[in-house]
Amino acid sequence: MKLADLPTPCLVLDRAILQRNLDTMARAVARHGVALRPHMKTAKSIDVARLALDTRLVQTSGITVSTLAEAEYFASHGITDIIYAVGITPQKLEQIVKLNAGNADIKIITDDPDIATLIAAHATPPRTLIEVDCGEHRGGIGPDSADLIRIGRALGQACAGILAHAGHSYGGRSTAEMQHIAEAERASAVRAATRLRAAGVACDIVSIGSSPTALYATTLAGITDIRPGVYMLGDLFQAEIGTHAHADIAVTVLTSVIGRRPAERRILVDAGAMALSKDRSTEAAPQDWGFGHARDSAGRPSLGRAIVRRANQEHGIIDLDPEQPDPGFKIGDRLRIAPNHICMTAAQHDRYFVVDGDDEIIAVWPRINGW
Amino acid sequence: MKLADLPTPCLVLDRAILQRNLDTMARAVARHGVALRPHMKTAKSIDVARLALDTRLVQTSGITVSTLAEAEYFASHGITDIIYAVGITPQKLEQIVKLNAGNADIKIITDDPDIATLIAAHATPPRTLIEVDCGEHRGGIGPDSADLIRIGRALGQACAGILAHAGHSYGGRSTAEMQHIAEAERASAVRAATRLRAAGVACDIVSIGSSPTALYATTLAGITDIRPGVYMLGDLFQAEIGTHAHADIAVTVLTSVIGRRPAERRILVDAGAMALSKDRSTEAAPQDWGFGHARDSAGRPSLGRAIVRRANQEHGIIDLDPEQPDPGFKIGDRLRIAPNHICMTAAQHDRYFVVDGDDEIIAVWPRINGW
Repeated sequence: MKLADLPTPCLVLDRAILQRNLDTMARAVARHGVALRPHMKTAKSIDVARLALDTRLVQTSGITVSTLAEAEYFASHGITDIIYAVGITPQKLEQIVKLNAGNADIKIITDDPDIATLIAAHATPPRTLIEVDCGEHRGGIGPDSADLIRIGRALGQACAGILAHAGHSYGGRSTAEMQHIAEAERASAVRAATRLRAAGVACDIVSIGSSPTALYATTLAGITDIRPGVYMLGDLFQAEIGTHAHADIAVTVLTSVIGRRPAERRILVDAGAMALSKDRSTEAAPQDWGFGHARDSAGRPSLGRAIVRRANQEHGIIDLDPEQPDPGFKIGDRLRIAPNHICMTAAQHDRYFVVDGDDEIIAVWPRINGW
Repeated sequence: MKLADLPTPCLVLDRAILQRNLDTMARAVARHGVALRPHMKTAKSIDVARLALDTRLVQTSGITVSTLAEAEYFASHGITDIIYAVGITPQKLEQIVKLNAGNADIKIITDDPDIATLIAAHATPPRTLIEVDCGEHRGGIGPDSADLIRIGRALGQACAGILAHAGHSYGGRSTAEMQHIAEAERASAVRAATRLRAAGVACDIVSIGSSPTALYATTLAGITDIRPGVYMLGDLFQAEIGTHAHADIAVTVLTSVIGRRPAERRILVDAGAMALSKDRSTEAAPQDWGFGHARDSAGRPSLGRAIVRRANQEHGIIDLDPEQPDPGFKIGDRLRIAPNHICMTAAQHDRYFVVDGDDEIIAVWPRINGW
């Protein structure tokens, strides 16, 4: 099967680019001597997870997930060492305990003293990381908070360590800023771990990470593992903030021309908001790519700045680059859209059609969406 | 099963509200003596489609769909009279012909003379509507365009009529503006139909419609059917533009509290961008509801203006209403989020958990997502 045979819209994953991205991150993490624990929230694929873990370039320590559906899916496919990196609830605690009674070893996170007590009261408590806020101000307690020791002591034997996430690294725009955020993330996690240990609470894991901080960190002293995710596939936003090149975007949305307005140098395609998502991450980036960057059917940026300007449910409206010759598209012609934010775009699809640098479909990889 | 037993996040559909919305639209369309052809792109559910068509309040004429996956799904469940209301491509034409060789009667649309010729050259061409632009400037040709007659003649026997869609009605903010857009939609479609017929081309169907224009039209003279969709479920954006009340929002996202920051009157919930979508329709509405409006676990607006201010992948950040007493949420407590734009929010989920005014789950209705 060839790209031209695929129904549109659909996701195309270039395995050669994926492998290059995996190798780049593995080398970046290896230079610090910490373990890589890839976050599977972006790719949500066992095939991608296996490639991410099958490396001699760096030590790996299992995976990270964002949903119980992912946890169950990856465990059922043999990847059992998992951190579920979203604050646990009483109901989800029961589900995790059941999964761990099978072959899974799912670690959970909390920043709440009441929940820590509930976890520890369990006959078979999952190992639990305390979520520390390193400046994003989403989940987590401050590294100097009195609650840290309270939670650690409440967890007791169930305490596995510290988890921090510098999600605000996505707001960084310069190397200096990224390095500063990465160092704050590291320092917060290490400070919390030091306090916990001083209070006599075990702290085996000191886990941080986002793709930007994994790449920009100057030191990871005191850290045991790091959890980047979006680096595998890449997107326009990550390219804009300099964590990779546009050529490193591994996944595009294959789409067909469904309308043409030559006088306005505009075309309609069948990749609308459903296929691309409504994510507008690049609105705040140096260059705004609308709802995506239209490339030619081979994935090359030969159309210049052809941008998806509007995204209705099943219609994408592309403004062609006025500085390029008119490509003369006809109805049914194919393009590929590089996504703004791959986590959101990929989640609109249930599978990847995999190529390896050309137009031959070498595999179809399912995704585990939902909860 | 009760709401409290459901894993979160998930979609909750209140059947009583759905039925009320269906009846309201049926009466609004019936007053014009045209047929209702509900657009299933929002609900994507055979159970909802059956309720929408099972009415004595108005004549119905099949359904409208936005994807081939919907077309195939509804036809396989016995709803065979379908308009696929997105411009056809050569590849999709072949798929439609195959479906129509079974039990389906899928009508297609085009605004392209070359495609019209291709359709007519087919041994068994699907009946085809010519897409007319009534001011949205997305797909379609102008009602006075020379191409209209060219496409009609190229289609010949396959020509089924005219289709227009005033998607720009969502930009209307007053009754006068809505009525003006609705009348322009009607007049464009009728003008095109009149020209086609004068040129000797058959034109059985003259189809228009969005939920706002269906409700605001003062006359539908010359129209045969109307295709609203979002009216079934409703959302904050539709409430803001006055097409229904907040109490008519039939679908909410059930979510659990996963973090609390009492000092900031802020909570974290497990409905983030994946569960709500990144749609920000109400950004341009009279009141901006962020990524959604948080209600209590019974779906009542007892929390005042509690708004999802940020939506990360699996984290929603809710700012509680400073003018309301502190609800004192604990980890695991439930809320229900009314969505900005239900087409996008519902598409993040594969099923509805159906209630009927209380907390008992009376049914689980699947959705047909994807392409």
